[in-house]
Amino acid sequence: MHKSRLGGLIIDCRTKDLGKAAEFWGQALGMAWEQAQADDSADYRTLQAPPGEPYMEVQRVDHASRVHLDIETDDVPAEVKRLEALGARRLGAVRDWVVMEAPTGQRFCVVPVVRGGFDEGANVWK
Amino acid sequence: MHKSRLGGLIIDCRTKDLGKAAEFWGQALGMAWEQAQADDSADYRTLQAPPGEPYMEVQRVDHASRVHLDIETDDVPAEVKRLEALGARRLGAVRDWVVMEAPTGQRFCVVPVVRGGFDEGANVWK
Repeated sequence: MHKSRLGGLIIDCRTKDLGKAAEFWGQALGMAWEQAQADDSADYRTLQAPPGEPYMEVQRVDHASRVHLDIETDDVPAEVKRLEALGARRLGAVRDWVVMEAPTGQRFCVVPVVRGGFDEGANVWK
Repeated sequence: MHKSRLGGLIIDCRTKDLGKAAEFWGQALGMAWEQAQADDSADYRTLQAPPGEPYMEVQRVDHASRVHLDIETDDVPAEVKRLEALGARRLGAVRDWVVMEAPTGQRFCVVPVVRGGFDEGANVWK
């Protein structure tokens, strides 16, 4: 038995100026944004989503700009297996995330639990 | 003065079988999905997002599959003007929605208010 749910939304931006990208999206969505706090988060800015809503991040990427979903789970390998059985394809891993592709073509990530309220809010898979 | 906030997420799928696309995304995210109820919603399926979270829809499209954001507002023209001042570009209109492109390249829509709790939850722009 494991659990999962929609974790958050990542706004992938092909840009040299991540600060400017975060500023646009923060102002567009009315969310404050935070500077990266560690070296390894240099490619990310967190937007402050309202409590209880999926998290939002702006990411600097080399591929074309897009938006992708994160599915958060308490068991990444089990969730990847479940999604493969539904028709998704495993493309690779980055840190402790697994990158997958939906049968409809969108890429998304399976990640360890990030936002609060997971135990009550997540779906249970047997 | 007008208001806006993140309304929802549209999962654009280039597919002939919208039902199958909705089934994948519904099962992947653990959300029930609904059949279209009117002729003009034949290209859409609603996924039941948890209360208080952004709405989720699966849409059949002719362009490449992707995910896009909707910004909901009580004044579409004023919100479009605000977003243009931030650097977004107006691309066109579909029904009562305006399609825009962010300076970082993603397309998104500005739409009339859809989800509950807008008055309390939305950002106020003066």
